[in-house]
Amino acid sequence: MSNAELNAAPDPSWTELVSAELPLFEAALDEATAPRPGCPARLSEAIRYAVLAPGKRLRPILLLTAARVCGGSIEAALPAAVAVELIHAYSLVHDDLPAMDDDDLRRGRPTVHVQFDEATAILVGDALIPLAFEILATRIQPETTALACCRELATAAGAGRLVGGQADDLAGSVSCEADPVEHLESIHLRKTAAMLAVSVKLGGIVAGAGPETLDRLERFGRDLGLVFQITDDLLDFRGDPAKMGKRGAKDQRLGKLTYPALLGADASQRLAVEIMARAASQLEPLGPASEPLVQLARLVLSRVH
Amino acid sequence: MSNAELNAAPDPSWTELVSAELPLFEAALDEATAPRPGCPARLSEAIRYAVLAPGKRLRPILLLTAARVCGGSIEAALPAAVAVELIHAYSLVHDDLPAMDDDDLRRGRPTVHVQFDEATAILVGDALIPLAFEILATRIQPETTALACCRELATAAGAGRLVGGQADDLAGSVSCEADPVEHLESIHLRKTAAMLAVSVKLGGIVAGAGPETLDRLERFGRDLGLVFQITDDLLDFRGDPAKMGKRGAKDQRLGKLTYPALLGADASQRLAVEIMARAASQLEPLGPASEPLVQLARLVLSRVH
Repeated sequence: MSNAELNAAPDPSWTELVSAELPLFEAALDEATAPRPGCPARLSEAIRYAVLAPGKRLRPILLLTAARVCGGSIEAALPAAVAVELIHAYSLVHDDLPAMDDDDLRRGRPTVHVQFDEATAILVGDALIPLAFEILATRIQPETTALACCRELATAAGAGRLVGGQADDLAGSVSCEADPVEHLESIHLRKTAAMLAVSVKLGGIVAGAGPETLDRLERFGRDLGLVFQITDDLLDFRGDPAKMGKRGAKDQRLGKLTYPALLGADASQRLAVEIMARAASQLEPLGPASEPLVQLARLVLSRVH
Repeated sequence: MSNAELNAAPDPSWTELVSAELPLFEAALDEATAPRPGCPARLSEAIRYAVLAPGKRLRPILLLTAARVCGGSIEAALPAAVAVELIHAYSLVHDDLPAMDDDDLRRGRPTVHVQFDEATAILVGDALIPLAFEILATRIQPETTALACCRELATAAGAGRLVGGQADDLAGSVSCEADPVEHLESIHLRKTAAMLAVSVKLGGIVAGAGPETLDRLERFGRDLGLVFQITDDLLDFRGDPAKMGKRGAKDQRLGKLTYPALLGADASQRLAVEIMARAASQLEPLGPASEPLVQLARLVLSRVH
């Protein structure tokens, strides 16, 4: 797919694209984080503050759309969508902690450790991880599918992916490898792309897709994750705090590795378009049914939502 | 079982009791935490520092012993034993953080945030939780059993149990309910007893035990957890730092709720013996085969190990 093609179609807005899935997802997320016996009221409140904060819900929407693309039902895929969002939400809460990125604001609201306290923010994350696996293990049918979801999410959220990427990202400015662009891509493949890839893949898994389709979905998600990160870096580089809602030009201030810093803004933009084309090409063998996923990807690239 | 009976038999030592299981378990734990692609060397080192620290391995030993009592094999139960120890290890690392209990030493060694740094300690915990579920989901057979293990461990490690108990424990001295003894028991049922109960229960699950046996194992584990906590409080109250290897009389200094502070040392001791008798009675219908579990429980009560 060429750049011209990528930009040719008049894209529906994010709101239009997700209108079927979003209300169902929000209701499922609300139910999953309902107060439960044994959970102190304040912790419960902090969990809901973290999870029910307004957000695009990119990961669950990708998951539900992938399930639809593969002929599955939204309802059957909802628990998996909730699980990936809970892992995403925990990672934001812990990343914002003073010992990590030390952010006071996220999307214009005080972060969890600011709104509550640091111990509560740590415990919110610690509670969300097992909750994600509890939901997969109790709500996904059949058992083989539930177990495959647990395996995939555990790997994506683990030391070799999400957590390892965050560790290297924190150390970013001090421990560079021989090729800084490769090092940066490796961080984002783990920190961002792994969770997007597993989201798309779980959609295929709950819809019963075969191994080749799952591979294509995963590669699509991984590329989309890189596109997401490059555009994130570009937004930050251009210093658009309204779009970012966090950090401002903090990455530059901290001397963090970013694509624009390493490649320049224009080359970063071209790289994003190139990876986006590769992502879309992964889905071509799936035929026109895969169009909704490509539309979501285009929105990530253009950030019009 | 009377107090006299509880104290009658010449008990084997901890080392004798666990001689069959411990080397197999340590090897499995070492393998489970081997460096993996994508995990930075320093994070990997910190994970192993936290997990492979010398310890009694009470939870996995209970699990493996329960599996044996129920006629299962040690080998088949090992992944579940590793999983409960990983959750236990993460909870210690996070509990020790400055924002939580702020402990510099654990069993005479610097805690993870002291030996490495705070961000690494947070990430170690964040990596250990999904690793526990990855191991259950990939290593336990058959699938129904693996999924049951995921469900049980996720609940025990979640907001309603382990994490909720820790939240209330942190708030302990300031937010008492009407009956402080009930409040204290509720904290320990969640913070300590839930993980001991799930350990014993998972042993039964991997061995294919029926629902009534699983119930008895779980109740036994829960009572044992209370006994464990009361004796822990008593050791701390008597200020035996050699036995404790941490905290000294810190609980008293912080005005934390403890059994000796609420009931006095003698009444706490009597309560522990009483709950121990109730725990042992849970296992009577299982016959003499359950004796190894009762022996482990006696050692917890006497703390001769």
